[in-house]
Amino acid sequence: MRYGFDATTGKIDPFAAELPEGPPPPSVLILNIWPQVDGGRFGIKREIGDEVELWADIFKDGHDKIAAQILFWPAGSDAVEFAEMAFVDNDRWSGAFRPDAIGRWQYQIIAWPDLLATKRDEIVKKFDAGIDISLELREFDVLLEQVVTGNPDAAETVDSLRRQIAQRPTMGEKVAIVTGLDSIAALRPWRDLGGAAYSPVFEVMVDRVRARFAAWYSMFPRSAGTVEGQSGTFADVEARLPDIAQMGFDVLYFTPIHPIGSTNKKGKNNTLISTDEDPGVPYAIGSALGGHDAIEPTLGTLEDFHHLVSESARWGIEIALDIALQGSPDHPWATTHPDFFTVRPDGTIKFAENPPKKYEDIYPLSFDTDAWRELWLELERVIRFWVAQGVKTFRVDNPHTKPTVFWEWLIRRVHADHPDVIFLSEAFTRPKVMHALAKAGFAQSYTYYTWRTARWEIEQYLQELTSVEVSQYMRGNLFTNTHDINPYHLQNGGIPMFKSRFVMAATMSSVYGIYSGFELGEATPVPGKEEYLNSEKYEYKVWDWDRPGNIKYLIETVNRARRDHPALQEYDNLRFHSADDQRLLTYSKVDADADDRILCLVSLDPVNPLNTWIHLDLAELGLVDGLPYHVTELISGNTWIWTGGHQSVQIDPAIEPVWVLSLSTTT
Amino acid sequence: MRYGFDATTGKIDPFAAELPEGPPPPSVLILNIWPQVDGGRFGIKREIGDEVELWADIFKDGHDKIAAQILFWPAGSDAVEFAEMAFVDNDRWSGAFRPDAIGRWQYQIIAWPDLLATKRDEIVKKFDAGIDISLELREFDVLLEQVVTGNPDAAETVDSLRRQIAQRPTMGEKVAIVTGLDSIAALRPWRDLGGAAYSPVFEVMVDRVRARFAAWYSMFPRSAGTVEGQSGTFADVEARLPDIAQMGFDVLYFTPIHPIGSTNKKGKNNTLISTDEDPGVPYAIGSALGGHDAIEPTLGTLEDFHHLVSESARWGIEIALDIALQGSPDHPWATTHPDFFTVRPDGTIKFAENPPKKYEDIYPLSFDTDAWRELWLELERVIRFWVAQGVKTFRVDNPHTKPTVFWEWLIRRVHADHPDVIFLSEAFTRPKVMHALAKAGFAQSYTYYTWRTARWEIEQYLQELTSVEVSQYMRGNLFTNTHDINPYHLQNGGIPMFKSRFVMAATMSSVYGIYSGFELGEATPVPGKEEYLNSEKYEYKVWDWDRPGNIKYLIETVNRARRDHPALQEYDNLRFHSADDQRLLTYSKVDADADDRILCLVSLDPVNPLNTWIHLDLAELGLVDGLPYHVTELISGNTWIWTGGHQSVQIDPAIEPVWVLSLSTTT
Repeated sequence: MRYGFDATTGKIDPFAAELPEGPPPPSVLILNIWPQVDGGRFGIKREIGDEVELWADIFKDGHDKIAAQILFWPAGSDAVEFAEMAFVDNDRWSGAFRPDAIGRWQYQIIAWPDLLATKRDEIVKKFDAGIDISLELREFDVLLEQVVTGNPDAAETVDSLRRQIAQRPTMGEKVAIVTGLDSIAALRPWRDLGGAAYSPVFEVMVDRVRARFAAWYSMFPRSAGTVEGQSGTFADVEARLPDIAQMGFDVLYFTPIHPIGSTNKKGKNNTLISTDEDPGVPYAIGSALGGHDAIEPTLGTLEDFHHLVSESARWGIEIALDIALQGSPDHPWATTHPDFFTVRPDGTIKFAENPPKKYEDIYPLSFDTDAWRELWLELERVIRFWVAQGVKTFRVDNPHTKPTVFWEWLIRRVHADHPDVIFLSEAFTRPKVMHALAKAGFAQSYTYYTWRTARWEIEQYLQELTSVEVSQYMRGNLFTNTHDINPYHLQNGGIPMFKSRFVMAATMSSVYGIYSGFELGEATPVPGKEEYLNSEKYEYKVWDWDRPGNIKYLIETVNRARRDHPALQEYDNLRFHSADDQRLLTYSKVDADADDRILCLVSLDPVNPLNTWIHLDLAELGLVDGLPYHVTELISGNTWIWTGGHQSVQIDPAIEPVWVLSLSTTT
Repeated sequence: MRYGFDATTGKIDPFAAELPEGPPPPSVLILNIWPQVDGGRFGIKREIGDEVELWADIFKDGHDKIAAQILFWPAGSDAVEFAEMAFVDNDRWSGAFRPDAIGRWQYQIIAWPDLLATKRDEIVKKFDAGIDISLELREFDVLLEQVVTGNPDAAETVDSLRRQIAQRPTMGEKVAIVTGLDSIAALRPWRDLGGAAYSPVFEVMVDRVRARFAAWYSMFPRSAGTVEGQSGTFADVEARLPDIAQMGFDVLYFTPIHPIGSTNKKGKNNTLISTDEDPGVPYAIGSALGGHDAIEPTLGTLEDFHHLVSESARWGIEIALDIALQGSPDHPWATTHPDFFTVRPDGTIKFAENPPKKYEDIYPLSFDTDAWRELWLELERVIRFWVAQGVKTFRVDNPHTKPTVFWEWLIRRVHADHPDVIFLSEAFTRPKVMHALAKAGFAQSYTYYTWRTARWEIEQYLQELTSVEVSQYMRGNLFTNTHDINPYHLQNGGIPMFKSRFVMAATMSSVYGIYSGFELGEATPVPGKEEYLNSEKYEYKVWDWDRPGNIKYLIETVNRARRDHPALQEYDNLRFHSADDQRLLTYSKVDADADDRILCLVSLDPVNPLNTWIHLDLAELGLVDGLPYHVTELISGNTWIWTGGHQSVQIDPAIEPVWVLSLSTTT
């Protein structure tokens, strides 16, 4: 940063008393860099193995040749690497780099006038026009001199080149040396003779692949038991692992496992009056037994938890914990740190409310507190505690009621030591708030998918979620249902609706989840509400995990397809196709590198058979019109051969409302 | 800027050893600010009288109410003013301010949690739900206490409010005081109780209106004479002023008026051999008589120039000079400052070339020179010299061959003292380079209009030029022709083509120009080239300014329409309508505030009559389907009444290839 230039904007300061010392300011402009999120205020996201492809307008005045590179390095490190950028068209340049480790990386674009290339160009043009170029060759030699002056280690290369030029007897041969690919390659490391412009520094978070590709199974661990009226235990959960693994899930998410408060404890079905038998709501965290770093004793001990984490890993499953940053009135913080909450003028702590509703069993944290530093550090300590217990994935409850900047700090702090930790944002709120949380660092986000039912709104919303703009920073984790959302279409649609909703979640996005009971077709509501009747939130439950009518075969099949088909493991490759019948959703995912194509047909009508035409965009599928291709339906195993994009299909939801088709150009 | 936060991005630094002292970081986010050019790297442009309307996504976590304001001030001043922003929808806010002086202004958005409003909201909701609110009223009082603590001058207002609340006997009446519009208004100046977030600072250049609304007449002053083979003089130019003013032009632009070099002087029609009678090319600037701050003696003296500037002003015309930053081999700089040029290994100064073409009468300046500081300051001195002579508009020759950052600096330097100075960029080069020059500070830009002839390409290009994105920083000055461009369509199209090209330039953009001779229908080319035969660039010329076939009546009429109709004075209000015949261009400009509507029909076929339907977008015109409107054709004076958007028109280019229609809903 030199005097007279603004560090932030690169603008020269016209009010500075004098022009800056040294060489003139860079004449190259680097603008319109893609991708960027809010002008670089937030980073982009990738997964390990991905290339980070960059685009920018790079140009200068006049006709000089320029060169451009990407500089990239792990954040906080000075191990800078370089990747070449190439001119594409219309002053647009492109280049790419591939980070070789998870974590935050930084990068910037550098571009400069390539004086050697400019002089070569002049020499060639003049020589071709029959103009004497002896003076231009001397000018080229002056540039070579500058290369050596600035880079003593270039002396040998330059000397060799000079000798070759000198030894050639004719101008034509000299020109051939000057402009030869060998000479250009030899001088390439020292092309930059000054005047380089630097873009701002951007950031990319490189996550592990599971941030993008995962199947979540959500459960109350206390519901894993087999005795009515008693809490299930971590040991009971271990007994559930084979079934969950068989279905193909790889993330097992628990509602909070901490001690539950007794003050104003809720009874069954959210009643205000409870008995000693009622276990309370797991989100009323904290009692005399401990707070966010303690385990509810009826579930087991910390050792039991460690055992469960290990057992799960054996089944290819990782445990995700729920982070609900609030306390019951009995939380230790209420005593040790009342300043973590809102203390009212009468000395009481303010409980949660949404007037006229009151939640007297919950104290929300106050992030406006003067003790905000202690609060932030305590919450960081909680996360680090569970990371130390082997937990690498967290589902964060209601993150939108805490400052976005807090999450940005917390996630960065945790990633500084544990870049493999994944945070899922459970924010069901206004779209821009949800997007801001994703930008702030959440690897995955709950979405509105749970409520999108009409074809047009599913298409529109999923196109947005997987668009090239949004997918830079947001990965929509599509949940069919949650313990808070028993959507009306599941209440009314019967098993075919469960099947359709499942397949859409599991194939439109590479990351999705279900809340346990879904596989059984459970949707008994509190009448008129999107709540489950006799919800696990308020009581112990015992389930028959193989009850008739369950769709576990379908879940298993689709999860196997997800593992077998790279196309289903990518997030941003969703493309919709058209079908004449508006009740049929048609979409594909293609992985061109893997020559893998999946086409899904999903009936949004759970009752009536569909007999309609679909119209495939063959170019999107990488198929050629007129050439036959093989079609395999992965649930039924049926196969046939299609030619062209217009196909007649008959789908009977009573049999199977979904077709998951693998399209292949080879047998 | 507090420790632990990044000044540029607002990001909290997770690697900082400790969290910053003081209150927590702002929880409000201000994102997606519109307008902005390259993320604020460059400013936007407006003209005096305009409002600067801003949009932004502004939100925070939770359900707190927030407030937002625009802060704006003249750049370099600390006289900050405020403008309120209002919530629109979906976390989008909007506000506006109106700078009251020309020059550069800066602005930023500030937003904060409005704790008073949040508490009022809570009080109302709870009171309406029948909940006791005595504690909430105490909390409101605590906030009032904070208001006074932070703002002692609020004491009187707050005391009065407290008394009113205390005096009211019922809760309902107390609530009415707390939430009354009077109370809200009284406390409004002290709403900000801390925690405000600040956006980056943006800039707007507020130009005088002539930056947007001007009609340029371009000429060689030496061609104003009446004696063959002799140079016209400034006095001769004065004699031309009545005619130029009668046509309605308000900017009179001269090619360079400086002494011309004799070394390698060009002869007629760009021949390499010249005689003593040949005057040379005005762009070969500089001789023993002086350089860029001198006047070619055959034109007159500096006093004559002053007289001409004054006389022009009397006719409502301002003089624009040509800034061509290059020298002839005889320029004083070649002796005093050879380091302003490229000195070759043999000691010679490099002349201009575009291999294999050579321009041996021109030395280009070198902006890579070690003497760049002296060069920049000398060039600034030249501009300031002419500003001191009363020149406020400059047409800059080939700015794209000098660094953009130089222009950014130069224009800012000049504007620091003379914000009324207007620079026109004569860059005919790649689009991104042209756009960058506009962003760097040029008030107006030459465009590709001169070469756009097909309806689709005119529509597409003008839509881009006047789009909401581009018009933030670029004002396209549409030239029908220049002394360097005698376009083929004028060479071949005859007078109807001149008329069509003129009307398009003068009505599609609010700023346009012609090069003298155009009004006479002059288009004799060097055969096969876009050059004028016997070009004024190389010789003295004498013209008959009233020669038969001229289109001065049309120019006068259209320029009068431009002055009479506010719709033609705006830049970004161009809208295209459809016509069945692809040879008919149909577009409108509307100024809704002035209830002014202009509709233009332009035949792109200079020969054959058109008989076709046009289809007007009535909503764009602010007209109601089914209601009749009055139509006046401003060239012929014909009037009629139309109803609806579908109209049959008959246009015969032999009579008049253009209709300029004023549409009115009243008589």
